[in-house]
Amino acid sequence: MEYRRVKDQENYDAVSQKDIESPGERSLSSKFTAAATSSLSTAGGSKGKNSWKLKSIVTLALTLLTSSQAILIVWSKRAGKYEYSVTTANFSVEALKCLLSLIALYRTWNSQGVTEDNRLSTSFDEVSVYPIPAVLYMVKNLLQYYIFAYVDAPAYQILKNLNIISTGVLYRIILKKKLSEIQWAAFILLCAGCTTAQLNPSSDHVLQTPIQGWMMAIVMALLSGFAGVYTEAIIKKRPSRNINVQNFWLYIFGMLFNLVAICVQDFDAVMNKGFFHGYTFITILMILNHALSGIAVSMVMKYADNIVKVYSTSVAMLLTAVVSVFLFGFHLSLAFFLGSTVVSVSVYLHSVGKPQPQK
Amino acid sequence: MEYRRVKDQENYDAVSQKDIESPGERSLSSKFTAAATSSLSTAGGSKGKNSWKLKSIVTLALTLLTSSQAILIVWSKRAGKYEYSVTTANFSVEALKCLLSLIALYRTWNSQGVTEDNRLSTSFDEVSVYPIPAVLYMVKNLLQYYIFAYVDAPAYQILKNLNIISTGVLYRIILKKKLSEIQWAAFILLCAGCTTAQLNPSSDHVLQTPIQGWMMAIVMALLSGFAGVYTEAIIKKRPSRNINVQNFWLYIFGMLFNLVAICVQDFDAVMNKGFFHGYTFITILMILNHALSGIAVSMVMKYADNIVKVYSTSVAMLLTAVVSVFLFGFHLSLAFFLGSTVVSVSVYLHSVGKPQPQK
Repeated sequence: MEYRRVKDQENYDAVSQKDIESPGERSLSSKFTAAATSSLSTAGGSKGKNSWKLKSIVTLALTLLTSSQAILIVWSKRAGKYEYSVTTANFSVEALKCLLSLIALYRTWNSQGVTEDNRLSTSFDEVSVYPIPAVLYMVKNLLQYYIFAYVDAPAYQILKNLNIISTGVLYRIILKKKLSEIQWAAFILLCAGCTTAQLNPSSDHVLQTPIQGWMMAIVMALLSGFAGVYTEAIIKKRPSRNINVQNFWLYIFGMLFNLVAICVQDFDAVMNKGFFHGYTFITILMILNHALSGIAVSMVMKYADNIVKVYSTSVAMLLTAVVSVFLFGFHLSLAFFLGSTVVSVSVYLHSVGKPQPQK
Repeated sequence: MEYRRVKDQENYDAVSQKDIESPGERSLSSKFTAAATSSLSTAGGSKGKNSWKLKSIVTLALTLLTSSQAILIVWSKRAGKYEYSVTTANFSVEALKCLLSLIALYRTWNSQGVTEDNRLSTSFDEVSVYPIPAVLYMVKNLLQYYIFAYVDAPAYQILKNLNIISTGVLYRIILKKKLSEIQWAAFILLCAGCTTAQLNPSSDHVLQTPIQGWMMAIVMALLSGFAGVYTEAIIKKRPSRNINVQNFWLYIFGMLFNLVAICVQDFDAVMNKGFFHGYTFITILMILNHALSGIAVSMVMKYADNIVKVYSTSVAMLLTAVVSVFLFGFHLSLAFFLGSTVVSVSVYLHSVGKPQPQK
């Protein structure tokens, strides 16, 4: 799973030339991350090897967390309908991520001391762009309520695969990173394969989606892709900056926007029944999982990129389906096998289709 | 649609070193073919350009003929059930192909005189292998009656896509031609894409196919692939030999084997009602179409290869579906769009994934 390592290192400074990273700093930064995830080895190796290891581990973590996420959702649905308010759960996720980032930072400060790169204090210049992804996600989530006037839930699942294309296009346009022709072909296949794997007898409904539904789906895909690509740009703008500090500030704004959502949507419920009303063991597991997945996404943005993220979550979707066969007795359809085949070929083509280094 | 031209020219003599083709002979052979198909221009150009032109024209002809073939079948079904006996129709197809080959040869002899390459008389050595594809197809057609004890017709349609994989594998093993890794990936995608495009709500039945059904489907795919690859080997063994002579002998054996089939299956019916009983205008159109498609397949084997044939018939399948929307008011499913996307990407990857010429 050595995704485009060479290319990344080539294009790394395309995002910004502000911070020039020295090999020493990078391996330092790797070490801090190790403390944060408690799963990364700090043992030696060259920068390239470390970078490859980091990328593989965060990608694997994201894949496993995302697939268990979907399984937890199925499990919680089986256990009964949601009793808790979704907005408080979202807030808890952001708060937990903030807390985990702080714990990781605390360990870093203890072992390495406070440096320019890992201090929590920040400048307006650095932090001013951090609310933007949070705003984009909020607008997208708002749209989500309205799109269901035009498309039903299964059709929406299908349309969500437009995210794959929008992420690829925005990744190319905004981050100015190049994908080879074969990698573009692989990306189209990824989208087609994921959609095929999700086909069911009622999927053809999606073709009756009115034009408003299509427009909203496209806008949502663009917002979601833009938020992802923008987060990558923010995190990569300062390669030597400690990822936990970057996460801390991202999550602080996440908490703020979710606080607004609680006040607007669930103020009365929270006041009358309490913040944690209806929380069960599964709810807590889901919050924990979402928090860890969120951190894994940030790590992938820092050490890999949005393309790796899209592949990782797509493969997770397939993994979930396979695991669900054993856990919940689900049946796999022929469409699932065909879609999985196409996604597997896509992953293969993406890795062999690395752009040739320019001379 | 310039499929693997460079590679073909490299590997051309891998099949046999017996006949070494001179550029003059090749352009002569092109000219004869032109007379045969009445659609090929004999006008100038280098050998490479001519070869490219020939390859494109025969591929296009095969694609169009194959797609109109499926449309004729739908049309004839709409017009009522088959009243004619299928064995006599098959015999008529072979006889018509023989006749067309002879007409083309006659024109060639008139304009060029009889030469070593275009004379009809042949040696036992040359002709001894010609019955083999006919026997293979006969065995496959026999099996076809038995497989329906284990799988239903829609499932059989799906299983037929195994032909794509078997053709690719046998093409590699028997003709010893190389496909690049990307072309192999493209071939897997072609199979997955074609199957996806044919998905319908009852397709999942195929997963309940018993092991006997799978075995027979695989054997049939291997027989069909082997017959195709073997025909290519026979035709390419003597590159300078006139294709119409080669076709004549192939079709003579086709006639013979179909005569056996008439005697075994429909002897009484033919004796009592006559050979052409139940033939309608559509029957004649279908026979004409099958004859021309058969000749186009031979041309593709001569000037291109089995891989091009598989791509050509796959694209024809998609074309048929699109044309059926306009002709018969069929609806295209989401699965069809996804499958078509995958097939299109596959065609693209096949053409960009040409193996690098070895130094």
